[in-house]
Amino acid sequence: MDEKKVPRIRFEVEDCDPGSEARAGSLSTRRGRVQTPVFMPVGTTGTVKAMDPEDLAELGFGLILGNTYHMMVRPGEEVIRLHGGLHSFMGWAGSILTDSGGYQVFSLAHRRRISEQGVSFCNHIDGDMCMLTPERSISIQETLGADIMMAFDECPPCGADRSYLRASMERTSRWAERCLRARSRFGGALFGIVQGGLEKDLRLEHLDELASLGFEGLAIGGLSVGEEKQDTEAMVAFLAPRMPADRPRYLMGVGLPEDILHGIACGVDMFDCVVPTRNARNGQLFTWRGPIQIRHAAHRHSLEPIDARCGCPVCRRFTRAYLRHLYRMDELLGMRLNTLHNLYFYAELLREARRAILRGDYAAWSAEVMRGLQG
Amino acid sequence: MDEKKVPRIRFEVEDCDPGSEARAGSLSTRRGRVQTPVFMPVGTTGTVKAMDPEDLAELGFGLILGNTYHMMVRPGEEVIRLHGGLHSFMGWAGSILTDSGGYQVFSLAHRRRISEQGVSFCNHIDGDMCMLTPERSISIQETLGADIMMAFDECPPCGADRSYLRASMERTSRWAERCLRARSRFGGALFGIVQGGLEKDLRLEHLDELASLGFEGLAIGGLSVGEEKQDTEAMVAFLAPRMPADRPRYLMGVGLPEDILHGIACGVDMFDCVVPTRNARNGQLFTWRGPIQIRHAAHRHSLEPIDARCGCPVCRRFTRAYLRHLYRMDELLGMRLNTLHNLYFYAELLREARRAILRGDYAAWSAEVMRGLQG
Repeated sequence: MDEKKVPRIRFEVEDCDPGSEARAGSLSTRRGRVQTPVFMPVGTTGTVKAMDPEDLAELGFGLILGNTYHMMVRPGEEVIRLHGGLHSFMGWAGSILTDSGGYQVFSLAHRRRISEQGVSFCNHIDGDMCMLTPERSISIQETLGADIMMAFDECPPCGADRSYLRASMERTSRWAERCLRARSRFGGALFGIVQGGLEKDLRLEHLDELASLGFEGLAIGGLSVGEEKQDTEAMVAFLAPRMPADRPRYLMGVGLPEDILHGIACGVDMFDCVVPTRNARNGQLFTWRGPIQIRHAAHRHSLEPIDARCGCPVCRRFTRAYLRHLYRMDELLGMRLNTLHNLYFYAELLREARRAILRGDYAAWSAEVMRGLQG
Repeated sequence: MDEKKVPRIRFEVEDCDPGSEARAGSLSTRRGRVQTPVFMPVGTTGTVKAMDPEDLAELGFGLILGNTYHMMVRPGEEVIRLHGGLHSFMGWAGSILTDSGGYQVFSLAHRRRISEQGVSFCNHIDGDMCMLTPERSISIQETLGADIMMAFDECPPCGADRSYLRASMERTSRWAERCLRARSRFGGALFGIVQGGLEKDLRLEHLDELASLGFEGLAIGGLSVGEEKQDTEAMVAFLAPRMPADRPRYLMGVGLPEDILHGIACGVDMFDCVVPTRNARNGQLFTWRGPIQIRHAAHRHSLEPIDARCGCPVCRRFTRAYLRHLYRMDELLGMRLNTLHNLYFYAELLREARRAILRGDYAAWSAEVMRGLQG
């Protein structure tokens, strides 16, 4: 096939941890190279909330996530097209992975109607009637200039029964093939999304099917949608090691630091989540000894940094008392500094995880970090 | 007197414009030197809203304004004392001028009672009963570590009658003397505030009195409190050139770009105002061809920067369409970028004004800029 001739991404596994499924690698897009395992900050509306693109680069991020659904609703595809893509629109020189819009259609939009063709819905901003199909999703993602695109899928609700899961999964497979056919020769890489709820056999069946279709990477979708934490973990532990070893494995929408450490142990290479940014705005700050809530009165007179072990630009310059003050006054700078810290924490967590894998020491390192995170 | 032995600030007039009262100079505090005329961004609650201290330094600001009243109410003097001052609390290495709290007591607080001793009031945050006296104001300003302090004054309301103005002014003079006596040997410089409403003779009388008291600088207070714009301008034009030429002249709370250009022409050296930061958050962006409102539909598809003539970090990187999108989505980055632009515009306006003074060309330059600002 034509698209094989142009390498859209390159992925190499550099090292595997002897005591777990964890692996260290590198992922190169047309725009640059990131080391894996990698965390992608989420740029929902064309901005990673409270961050300047320069901040992200300085924190060490090279790959962020953009949302097709949000960009389609506002500012609309035409504005992005005029800018020559999302990179130029938001001033980001690194790589961008875009989701397909599927998840938001199922979590945000109203009056959803699913057909074989695609999904029609009323968007959550102005209620306008919209339609997403596999072809339309790919077309928008190509307009966004995504370095990595995601196939348009249905994300079934938590608790959907087996017959619904199977029908949805089979439709998602047909959509996956349409996505692959729809992309242009010069478009980004395309990842398929494995669904199947909490049914191991369905998951495995879907994985095998998608793996055979020629996607450049595969993702685990449909988790962290309301199921029990041990069910999420069990499914990741079951599925991730069975995903093709020569392609990147992406666990969508996960998660807390401990979820990421678990995902890495199972062989996942890529993560995204709004937790570090959203929790920052709510005053929850991550530390190597567990999260703290900056609004608490205990920090009123504290001259300590958020985390004495942290080397981030916030911990080097500001006290907990100052950050608490900014939080209480609802100051914009507080949201920015909290976000800088949490994203740095995530970046550093992933860098240290990678170092542990390269040392062949991931299991022991991770167990120690987990104990710390529990406070 | 003892305090004469330690130079708290140094001020030098370097050049005077031949066609106006405008002058270029330099003002050095213990923490650094700024060139005048100078604009001071306002850091109301221990932060210049939406700005990191590093941003301010990069924009070229060396002197910002801190609010005694706000810091006294939240986080409270004790928290600042523990940090060793406001500079360390907010991570700002440049100079700080603090106001005395007088203006906020008269504009924000409730159940105000003025006596010879000082002012008692209920603060606007939690309604707690507080008291500010000249001695207490200086004590707090010294705890804040202000490089330049302001004398505690009464700012009479617009339209106050002559007898009220006189009584208030005379009390403000007695308070001024108490402020000078109250400061410690190692405290910052202290500026007196000239009051007297719109009565020229009262203003002149007050100016003479304060000028004789040994303040390191003098300020024009009690303007921009609701009077007509031509009254403000006439009073500045009358008073500023009569202020001691060897000391900095500070026009408090002013203002729009055109007000600042007028003030400079009258011989004012220092300005502060919330306009660039507050208006930025409301989407009003200054340009050399007048302000624009970024929310307007006209900018929807605009690939232009805010101002093609501007070299700020925002105009170099982002389009109006992107900034409009951020504004409509109420994104934190929008507030930050808008603020960066407006503060850069003010910094650049003052830098260009200074260059025009040094060229001896201020009147012509200023007239041309004024024409541009009117759009």
